[in-house]
Amino acid sequence: MDANTAQARELAAQPGRRRRGDVLQRAILAATLEQLQSVGYQKLTMEGVAAAAGTGKAALYRRWPGKPDLVSDALRDALPDPRELPLTDDVRADILSLLRCLRATADISQGAVFQLAKNEEGMESRFASMVDDRVLEPVRQLTLEVLRRGVARGELRPGAAGGHVADVGQAMLMHHAMTKGPDIPEEYLESVVDDVIMPMVTAR
Amino acid sequence: MDANTAQARELAAQPGRRRRGDVLQRAILAATLEQLQSVGYQKLTMEGVAAAAGTGKAALYRRWPGKPDLVSDALRDALPDPRELPLTDDVRADILSLLRCLRATADISQGAVFQLAKNEEGMESRFASMVDDRVLEPVRQLTLEVLRRGVARGELRPGAAGGHVADVGQAMLMHHAMTKGPDIPEEYLESVVDDVIMPMVTAR
Repeated sequence: MDANTAQARELAAQPGRRRRGDVLQRAILAATLEQLQSVGYQKLTMEGVAAAAGTGKAALYRRWPGKPDLVSDALRDALPDPRELPLTDDVRADILSLLRCLRATADISQGAVFQLAKNEEGMESRFASMVDDRVLEPVRQLTLEVLRRGVARGELRPGAAGGHVADVGQAMLMHHAMTKGPDIPEEYLESVVDDVIMPMVTAR
Repeated sequence: MDANTAQARELAAQPGRRRRGDVLQRAILAATLEQLQSVGYQKLTMEGVAAAAGTGKAALYRRWPGKPDLVSDALRDALPDPRELPLTDDVRADILSLLRCLRATADISQGAVFQLAKNEEGMESRFASMVDDRVLEPVRQLTLEVLRRGVARGELRPGAAGGHVADVGQAMLMHHAMTKGPDIPEEYLESVVDDVIMPMVTAR
């Protein structure tokens, strides 16, 4: 039983109490992931998810028009939220945190539940947009923010926050995944930060 | 009639003269590309290529064991050869030439003849290796050579030829293709050189 299943069971095991808002929403999303893993996208139903979450279909339809939206939201919820990263004004540490967040996203996107849903009609491009909105674009904006603050403190060269500098980390992770395989070792992340990004942005 | 077809016809139109070595080989490879474009991979035959090249099947079988090897060689021959690039010891110009060679390779690989052959059994990974051997690895080695010579002249920082620096240009082209589409404008290449690679390698 994995963490999602445990969470779904725990949240579902309170039928006497009326759960509202965030608590119920989290129970439904956890149950959706559990159903996706146990029966697959095609056999997943709104009824099945409602039953697994210990609630009624109406509670689902109040929040989601149907299965594709529900599954999308459940997968989105399984991704890391870059806006929760603790950024420190230590440029090297912050860039490394942002790269780790991208790596975690790649790992999750290649995982079983994403693969189970991805092959369905229209879902692949939908997931690509979701990953973009949830992780890639926020990471890009946070990277720019880290660089801008480094420039303002005089630690980074003027221009370090411009052009395509903020895409280099993501590009290097993508390059590793495409040429060397999907598992990206920590030493690779550190080498990208120390041999590529820091020399590119540091004022000397 | 495109350039390959014209070349194949011209070379084939000399039945009286016995063509040998390189000339015959080029005629056969040009005829292979022409056949690939006109009938597709599946219907392409050694006989058909021999007829289009104005030679006999034996001339083909002396050089290639069968269709997959012949088609691979024809596609390989259609790619640019990075070792023919004129390198100048002007780091910016040389890096830009190498990136243009990668872009041309991406354009050709996405073109009709590659697509026609790619979907056949086992051909996709074979083509990926071919593009790697013919273009990507030589570009990587030449990039390292350009960087090493720049370091030796004192124009580039020590370490500029190490780590993953030589992969950054290719990674940025790949990133553009995956996130913004396959047509890579000249301004993007120049921005990668001026905003990313040169600041990363230049001694300041």
